[in-house]
Amino acid sequence: MHEFELIRDYFQKLSKNSPGSLNLEDDVFFDKKNKLVVSVDTYVEGIHFINFTKPEWVIKKIIRSSISDLICKGVKPRYYFISASGNKKKFSKSNLSKISKSLNEEQNKYQIFLSGGDTVFSNKLSFTITSIGFDNNVVYRNKAKINDDIYVSGNLGDSYLGLMILKNKIKLNNSLNKYFINQYFMPNIQLKLANHIKKFANTSIDISDGLLADLDKMINKQKLSYKLFLKDIPISNNLKKILDFKKLSKINYISNGDDYQVIFTASKTKRRIIRKVSLNYRIKITKIGSIQSVGNKSSILDHKNMEISFKNKGYFHQF
Amino acid sequence: MHEFELIRDYFQKLSKNSPGSLNLEDDVFFDKKNKLVVSVDTYVEGIHFINFTKPEWVIKKIIRSSISDLICKGVKPRYYFISASGNKKKFSKSNLSKISKSLNEEQNKYQIFLSGGDTVFSNKLSFTITSIGFDNNVVYRNKAKINDDIYVSGNLGDSYLGLMILKNKIKLNNSLNKYFINQYFMPNIQLKLANHIKKFANTSIDISDGLLADLDKMINKQKLSYKLFLKDIPISNNLKKILDFKKLSKINYISNGDDYQVIFTASKTKRRIIRKVSLNYRIKITKIGSIQSVGNKSSILDHKNMEISFKNKGYFHQF
Repeated sequence: MHEFELIRDYFQKLSKNSPGSLNLEDDVFFDKKNKLVVSVDTYVEGIHFINFTKPEWVIKKIIRSSISDLICKGVKPRYYFISASGNKKKFSKSNLSKISKSLNEEQNKYQIFLSGGDTVFSNKLSFTITSIGFDNNVVYRNKAKINDDIYVSGNLGDSYLGLMILKNKIKLNNSLNKYFINQYFMPNIQLKLANHIKKFANTSIDISDGLLADLDKMINKQKLSYKLFLKDIPISNNLKKILDFKKLSKINYISNGDDYQVIFTASKTKRRIIRKVSLNYRIKITKIGSIQSVGNKSSILDHKNMEISFKNKGYFHQF
Repeated sequence: MHEFELIRDYFQKLSKNSPGSLNLEDDVFFDKKNKLVVSVDTYVEGIHFINFTKPEWVIKKIIRSSISDLICKGVKPRYYFISASGNKKKFSKSNLSKISKSLNEEQNKYQIFLSGGDTVFSNKLSFTITSIGFDNNVVYRNKAKINDDIYVSGNLGDSYLGLMILKNKIKLNNSLNKYFINQYFMPNIQLKLANHIKKFANTSIDISDGLLADLDKMINKQKLSYKLFLKDIPISNNLKKILDFKKLSKINYISNGDDYQVIFTASKTKRRIIRKVSLNYRIKITKIGSIQSVGNKSSILDHKNMEISFKNKGYFHQF
């Protein structure tokens, strides 16, 4: 069963008296009266992170993934709670020191504070992160307007190439290995964007499962579609080099998720302010396409404006 | 490593800029400014619940265990988030229907609302519940005063006998089996007490790991001790019968936790109001002992006022 069906069929009706739940159809819980924004996510070894060889990196990945849900809604994360399940080996003194040090670095970088949690014994390693922020408003999903521009922050695809290296499916030199693996574990999430996105975005989401999968989710209740230009989708110079050199497909690399960049749409009238925010606060923001009136006929065009056909839209949780 | 050491040595320092974390030494997070109270707990099959044969009961146990942390602090739970890890078999359509139905019953009983969460695939079944309430104040740990009376709500020990039956260590007739197993999965938590406890309690905790283990935790930063009278510790008539008939030790049954009753201390001057609240709102509240000035010399006395010696103070999470 698809994760969406599971939520729709068994859990959605339970949230009907909690308006802040946003029908379980958004990235966060938002209680407008109490200005409370909450995100809860679980990360399991082998699914959300490849292994625990580098606990100090894994912990950064999951913290950034968690607070990314708030940031893409325009909310600064403030508190986080960590519930850790693992055994003696995974939570050895040496690993705990590394985890603690990494958390401290993330706290300083993003101004967030550990506020509680739980530690339980389990032979399966997993973490649940609850992130909390306070705000008067959030940018919702499913609020795109026809002819909106579609934007994405940062670069996409580096993280997936990092994963391919970790899985020994691609071999590069040491310095490139390091670059891409760093991007897999420590994505450049855009905290500064949280302060500005509400000024221009109609709707937003962050990329965890893949650009196309998350774009679909962002507008899945709307009778709209998107048109993207593959050449406009931002990738790093390093990734560009590798794609060219190894003749790898760009669409595959930008569709596999773990990027934790923000996708949003905005009216064409907002182009100036977006450019200004991007320049003034040094946040890379790239226009990659537009919202169309045709329902469910999304497309992605190559450099000759020909529609690209592809199978894998990204990662889906199955039960 | 003991769970307490793990938190003290590796996580406490990370919470120092989050006053609401209460130094990670209390049951909840409490942000006074935002009136926000949060509790996060993870429940793993085989540790926190014996198995998943009855998903409809397990789900009630973990929800009650989670909101019990807020209730014992005098806070009405309002929202909960459920992050569920499991596989296709554990999350079959039949099991999901049972889980959904049980959650609905708990929502109606306790006026709480599902507000978000996550579902992830894992071969190890576990749930993380985040419970949230709003309040101007909470009853803290480590605020007992010398000569305070010690009280407990409800009855203790039924849940542990239920667990012994589930483990086939004790055999009773069908109706008693059902009674105790129900108490294991569906403890009678005291939502009504949340509305009143702040009027009289100096300090409080709920019993998850065992009366004595949790009493120790409630005052572990204070140079105080407790004196309890075994005969005063409230147990159900059913448990009394079984203990007498099978010659089982009362202290063992009241020390093994999963009771989710509230322990609190109050000044002797509060005896009248406590009796009144107990009568008017039909909440069983029993005085079981008092707080003493002697640090670390806690004792529990038998019917002849002789000190009882015992080894097992309750459940401790080890890594």
